[in-house]
Formats: sequence, structure tokens, C-alpha cells
Amino acid sequence: MRTLTVDSLNPAIKNVQYAVRGELAIKAEKYRVDLKDANHGLPFDKVISSNIGNPQQKGLDQPPITFTRQVAALTEWPALADLAPGVFPKDVVARAKELSEEIGSIGAYSHSQGVPLIRKSVAKFIEERDGYPSDPNQIFLTAGASAGVTLFINMLITPPNSGILIPIPQYPLYTATLAQYNGIGLPYYLDESSGWSTSVASIEAALEKAQKEGVAAKALVIINPGNPTGAVLDETTQEELVKLCEKHSLVLLADEVYQANLHQPEKYTFTSFKKVVSRLQSPVPLVSFHSISKGVSGECGRRGGYFECTNFSEEIIALIYKMVSIGLCPPVSGQIGVDCMVRPPKAGDESYELWKKETDTTHAALKSRTRTMAARLNALPGVFCVDSPGALYLFPQITLSAKVQEVARAAGKEPDAFYSLALLDETGICVVPGSGFGQKEGEWHYRLTCLCPGVDEYVGKLEKFHKGFVEKYGL
Amino acid sequence: MRTLTVDSLNPAIKNVQYAVRGELAIKAEKYRVDLKDANHGLPFDKVISSNIGNPQQKGLDQPPITFTRQVAALTEWPALADLAPGVFPKDVVARAKELSEEIGSIGAYSHSQGVPLIRKSVAKFIEERDGYPSDPNQIFLTAGASAGVTLFINMLITPPNSGILIPIPQYPLYTATLAQYNGIGLPYYLDESSGWSTSVASIEAALEKAQKEGVAAKALVIINPGNPTGAVLDETTQEELVKLCEKHSLVLLADEVYQANLHQPEKYTFTSFKKVVSRLQSPVPLVSFHSISKGVSGECGRRGGYFECTNFSEEIIALIYKMVSIGLCPPVSGQIGVDCMVRPPKAGDESYELWKKETDTTHAALKSRTRTMAARLNALPGVFCVDSPGALYLFPQITLSAKVQEVARAAGKEPDAFYSLALLDETGICVVPGSGFGQKEGEWHYRLTCLCPGVDEYVGKLEKFHKGFVEKYGL
Repeated sequence: MRTLTVDSLNPAIKNVQYAVRGELAIKAEKYRVDLKDANHGLPFDKVISSNIGNPQQKGLDQPPITFTRQVAALTEWPALADLAPGVFPKDVVARAKELSEEIGSIGAYSHSQGVPLIRKSVAKFIEERDGYPSDPNQIFLTAGASAGVTLFINMLITPPNSGILIPIPQYPLYTATLAQYNGIGLPYYLDESSGWSTSVASIEAALEKAQKEGVAAKALVIINPGNPTGAVLDETTQEELVKLCEKHSLVLLADEVYQANLHQPEKYTFTSFKKVVSRLQSPVPLVSFHSISKGVSGECGRRGGYFECTNFSEEIIALIYKMVSIGLCPPVSGQIGVDCMVRPPKAGDESYELWKKETDTTHAALKSRTRTMAARLNALPGVFCVDSPGALYLFPQITLSAKVQEVARAAGKEPDAFYSLALLDETGICVVPGSGFGQKEGEWHYRLTCLCPGVDEYVGKLEKFHKGFVEKYGL
Repeated sequence: MRTLTVDSLNPAIKNVQYAVRGELAIKAEKYRVDLKDANHGLPFDKVISSNIGNPQQKGLDQPPITFTRQVAALTEWPALADLAPGVFPKDVVARAKELSEEIGSIGAYSHSQGVPLIRKSVAKFIEERDGYPSDPNQIFLTAGASAGVTLFINMLITPPNSGILIPIPQYPLYTATLAQYNGIGLPYYLDESSGWSTSVASIEAALEKAQKEGVAAKALVIINPGNPTGAVLDETTQEELVKLCEKHSLVLLADEVYQANLHQPEKYTFTSFKKVVSRLQSPVPLVSFHSISKGVSGECGRRGGYFECTNFSEEIIALIYKMVSIGLCPPVSGQIGVDCMVRPPKAGDESYELWKKETDTTHAALKSRTRTMAARLNALPGVFCVDSPGALYLFPQITLSAKVQEVARAAGKEPDAFYSLALLDETGICVVPGSGFGQKEGEWHYRLTCLCPGVDEYVGKLEKFHKGFVEKYGL
């Protein structure tokens, strides 16, 4: 028989790139294994995975919310409420009972769209957040935001000539999924000099280019708060963006998974696109994605999230239902995580004080760490870092000398990948090169998370490495 | 702006069909809601969802395995071991501790391929089952078997002229996913008269037809034990199938999720394709899928499973890794479910007796129910039902008169869909018409699960309905 080779596979698969878990992350995993050997000979004693927003990762300091885990434990084994009397707070017991009665066994498939009661909780959360109605029938629970985004890219793209507008820099889920489905990424550039702001002009330019190239733009992706930028949109810009979608008949895909990660709430607040579309009474088809993986929830491993459709016909909702039903249902433990996120303990509930303390601590830690890290990175030679008001990341720009560029190219690497690889090899810190997110020609960045506990040690290592690198290669 | 219509979407999406959760299932859900109204006016008082193999569904009688749920509860909230001393068996506490130490928080993303320790457990399970080596690096944990199957169809299909051989009748995941990825289903027919047996001749015929039509066959799907048929392959046939894959350079996709559902183990035993390929030292690239949703585990809602690749190059394994990494990781609670399935309590462990009792009870119930149902269905006029030795279903053939066919066509329905709809309307029992799985022209079937607790009441309803239907429309 002929051997199965990469060339015999769907060529779209070969084109997919996903830097967040790419070469560097794989090497970091290898180092982690190597470190178990006492004679590892590596110049560091731990690997810090700063490549991915994974708050509960080993060695990081965002603990799970106790309320969520207690509810989860009780729905796993409901007999516990009687077997361990007094161990669970009353509101936890009540919530678990309510969920168990609705769901039955959490080992059963749920409704493909998600447990109806939990979708009602999500709708109520959205209504309270925005002040506009939300319909549980337009809400789909998912295995995290990625699953929802993938579905819409698959649904919207008709190969070979359709594309989706994506911000640059962007979270590479978008380019990876576009490649997978033979869609064309239509990049529009965010403006680093004004805090990574989004402008209608840059999107119009991208649309014009697409039209010239015969590519039909199907949708506009907005990540707010931004990933990797951390930028938070103001309402005026959001209104302009909605109007732009109206003008060009674009579906608006609003990735709002970082809506609870706001580090300068006195200056930058989050407004959902659902609110803006509702207020403008716009007919723009909007999909807004949320997740339990980020925010103060940080429950990545559960795989939970939702998307809400606005201005979608019943016929298309039925089509979405059909598509999600092939995957049977989102993980029930993720759905329970969604319920806990959108319906946290209220003042007066037995769990409230602990919940408040835990979430306040996480917010404060992220805020202070982000600010400290940005300040110290900015103090380094050849580094410029926007002081990110949202999300979990910083995306510093680094000046890389002609010499670095030459050495990197000779090694077959992008210069920022070369920098990041050297950082990993020397310090055990794994970041993602800017080339994985997209950036302007001739600029170099990397993304790192603001999740590491010992900020002094962490940034100290970054500083020491950077200074040594500059010394070696010049500025 | 232009409204978003179905016609503006990817046309592949429109072509997808998935009957298991289609029209009938949606109507059944509606009835379930209607029944909450005291004046529902329906001729039944409960809906029985026999359309889907969902063992832990409300009203069904397969309880979760206590060991699995105890381990899950402890990994959700590890403090419980100390807070509720003596509540958890010692082996549960030890397992949860081992998993928690390896995984860290279950709220963190795991390795995209699945927790290394759990992949090692899977490899050991496979080795003990087959007597041949298994490599954890060739194993990928998944969110259920469906997620894995979808990935391979996406990877193997290069539109517009490639296809995959699928059995008829088949589980509609295959046709649905092929439609989604613009692949071509190449049907080969199973032989009902010999217990739904698989023959090389029918596959060769399908291959010949494909070649004439210019379609490149990329893979052969085998479902063993069969869904919806319940047939269990013998080793001789399996060897022939492996040789056929060699001859035609086909990837063998072995859907083995029902490997633990065997109702006549004295006569029909399960042999994995991994074992056959290993024994023959065949170079056939094999992917075997398993799941925690079926068997005696029945943990559908957790979304857990795995696939093992055999004879795949490192380069292709790296490609698979890249693709699964875009989805970040399989649900950790599903991964823990996999660990509990492949590493159940052993004789001497504190949990063993209960585990043995629970799993024996489930096996016995399925076995006796399947046999009783097949016998009683076979006693009905115009019904022929293979006494299924495996899986969770029966797939009876029903004779439908010319009159039924005429009335059905007039109502725009396939005759078996018309029959199934009438069954639902009269009894509240939801089955899936054979047309959703594929069948020979002019034959009619339906699939029902053998999961309902009160077999007398359940089959009694089916019998009464069928007799009335035959009386009304003739045979």
C-alpha cells in the first residue's frame, strides 16, 4: 500500500498555524519533562508558561472560586449533601439541587443547545448587564468560546472567495480556523500608538482591498477587550463599527471573553456589542461570545462558554442547532460552570463573603501585576509596552537590531521568534512571538500573560535576559 | 443592509443531515414541555427518548458508576477528602490525589493531547486488552468519539473529489460530517439477512463505483459493534478488511465505542482492529475511537473519549497535535472519566465490590432487555428484527403497505419517518427512522435504544401502536 503522507491530506490542514501552542510551547513542555531529572543542566529550575491565558495552571496564583467547585462536586455526587452534612454552604446545596433536578444526571447528554435553565440564567445575566432583553432561545452554550467561533467560521465561509475581517494583532484562533475552512483572513490594523485603538478607516481600507481582490467579506471580528492587546473599546467607536457592519452587510462576531478582566475600571469600562446594537436598534446580525475560561472564573479545563445571537432568523437558528447537535452537547460540567459564572452568590447568601473575597483578590492581583509589568517593561531599552487596561496580556514592542534579524533569518526564524526562543532557553519563560498574532511589517512584539505570581522574580528574569540580549546584539 | 439568509451561508452546511436529533427529537422535546401543563391533552404522560444512546437520561435506569463520580467530586474540590473524612473509599481518595497531583487544578487547560498520565493509563488498558504494545504518544484524549471522527474527516477529505466508505446503515455522524466538509459518502451495504454482516465484496463494489465516478476513496469506516445494527465482527472478517485497506491504501477508521456492550459474550466477543493490525503486522494506518459515553460507563455529559493512531508518521501526529491544540484541550472532567473507565477498581480495592455490582447489573439489564425486546418485536406482524449481540440498539425492519407509502409521500415524509412520527404522537416514544441511517431502497426500519427501564410497559406501547397502525393501513 501507499504510505499515508502529509501531502495526501487535505491541504487546508497544512496551512493552519496556531502559535499559542506552537514550537515554543512544545519546547517548553519538553523542558518541563527534562527538569524532573536532577542533572538537567538547564539554566533555570522551572518553566513559566506565559504563552497562554491559563489562570489556574500549576505554579500560577489564580485559585478556583470555591462556590463553583462546591456546586460542581455536589452535582457530580449528589449523595454528598447528606453524607457530609454541614460541609457545604446552604446556597451551594440549593443551587446543586436546583441544577440536578433540571439536568438529571450530569452524565446524560443535555439539550444540544445547552440546559434550558442555564440558558435562562445567561439571558438574565445579559439583561442585567445591558438593560435590554435577551432570549434564551438565541443563546447556545458551548465548549468554550473557540468552539463557537469555529462553528461560525465554518458556516459563514464559502470557499474559495470569501473572507472575514480580523484585527492585527489577533488571537490566532481566527487565522487558524480560517485556514482550516479555506477562508481568507482580511487583516485590519490596530493602532499601537493610541493604545491599540480600532478605527473604521483601517477596516474600510481592508474592505476596499478585499473588493479589489474579488473576496467577499462575510463578517467582522472584534475582540473586546483585545487579545493580545488588552485594549478596551469606547462606545462611540462601537457605534461606528455597528454602522460599518450595516453599510457592508457584515455579521459582527464579538469576542467578549475578557469582559470581566478590567484593570482600570475608573477609566475603561466594558460595553457589550449587544447593548450597542440594541440601543441603535440596528439590524446587524451579531454573535457575542463569552467563556468561563477567563475573567475571575478562569475555569479553562471545564470547557464552557456561550454565544448569543442577535438579529438571526429562526431558520438560521435552526441551522445552528442542527450543526451543534452533531456534537451532541457541550460538556455538562462546563455548562454548570457557566451557571456559576452568570449567577454568582448574592449578598446575604452563605457563600457570598468568600466569593467576594476570592474575586476581589484576583481582580486586584491582575490589576497590580499588569501595571507593574508594563512599567518595568517600558523602562527597558528598546521596549515599548501599552499599559493594557483589559484582558490578561501585555504585548510589548521590541526593537531588534539588524544583527538579530540577520542571525534569526539565518536560523530560519522570524526575529521575534528568535528572541522568544532565546528567552525560553535562558529563563524557562515561554511567551508567544508577535508574528503569531500578526503585526506591521518590520515591527516585532511578543505576548506574555500577567498571570505569574512572583512578579518580581518573573519580570526580573525578563529584564536580565533582555539586557543581556541587547548587549549581545545591540539595539 | 442585506439580511443574512440561509442562501448566503456556506452551502455545505445546508446539506448536513443529522436525524438522531432531527425533526422527531425536536418534537419530542416540545411534548416534554407540553406535559408540564396539567391539561396537556396528549394521549401519553411521559416522553421516552429512545432516539439516542443516552444511558443516564432522566427516566432511564443506568445509574452512574459511583467510583467515577466520587473521583470526580474529589478532583472538583480536593479539600473534601479532609472535610468529609471517611465518606470516600480509600482507593477513591488515592486516585483523586494521584490525578490532582498530575493535573494540578482541573480548571486549568491540560496538555492539548490529554493529560500524559491518563494517556499512559489508556495505553496500559489497550495493551492488556490486546496483548500488543500501545504508545501514549499515539493516543489523543477527546471530547467524545464524535470530536475525533470529525477531525479525521476534516483532515482526510480534499474537496471536491474525495470520499470515505461508510456502512449502510450507519451512525449519521459520518454522513453529516462528510457533508460539512464537502466529502463524498461511499456507501457499502451490510447484510441484514446474516445479522447485518460486513462483506469485503460489498466494499469492493462501492470502491469500483467510486473509481468510475472519479472519487478517491480515502478511508474505510467500520463501526464494531455496529450502530445501529449491534452486529459484532468476527476476526476472519476483520483480517479481510485490514487486507482490503492495504490493497486500496485506505485509512481504517474503527469506531469501537460499543466494545463493552456485548450481550451474548459466549457467542460474540469483541476484537479490536488494533489487535488484528498488530497481529498481521499490517502497515494500514488505523485510528480506533473509544468513548466514555457508552459501555457501562454511560457518561455522555462529561464528553470524554480517546483515539489511538497506529502506523501514523511522526509528521502526521504533529499535524494532528496542531489541529487539536486550536481547541486547546479536551474537557478535563471527561479526561478523568476516561481514567476511571480504563482503570476501574481492582479486586481487593475498597470500591471494587460496589463497582462490580453496579457494572454487572447494567450488563445484565441490557442483555435481558435487548433479548426480550427483539423477541417481542419479532412476534409482531410485518416486523423483522435481528437479535443484536452488541451496542445499545435494535434496528427492526418494518413492512409498510402501499397505502402507508402513499399517505406518507403525500405528507412529504419518508414512510418510516411517517411511522415514527405516528408512534411519537400516540405513545410519546421517540425513535429514529431508518432513513436517517440509510437502508436499501424500498426497505423501512427504525432504530430504538434498549435503555428503557420498564421493558413491559415500553414494548407494550410499541406493540399496541404497531397493531393499530397495521389495522389502519394494512400490511
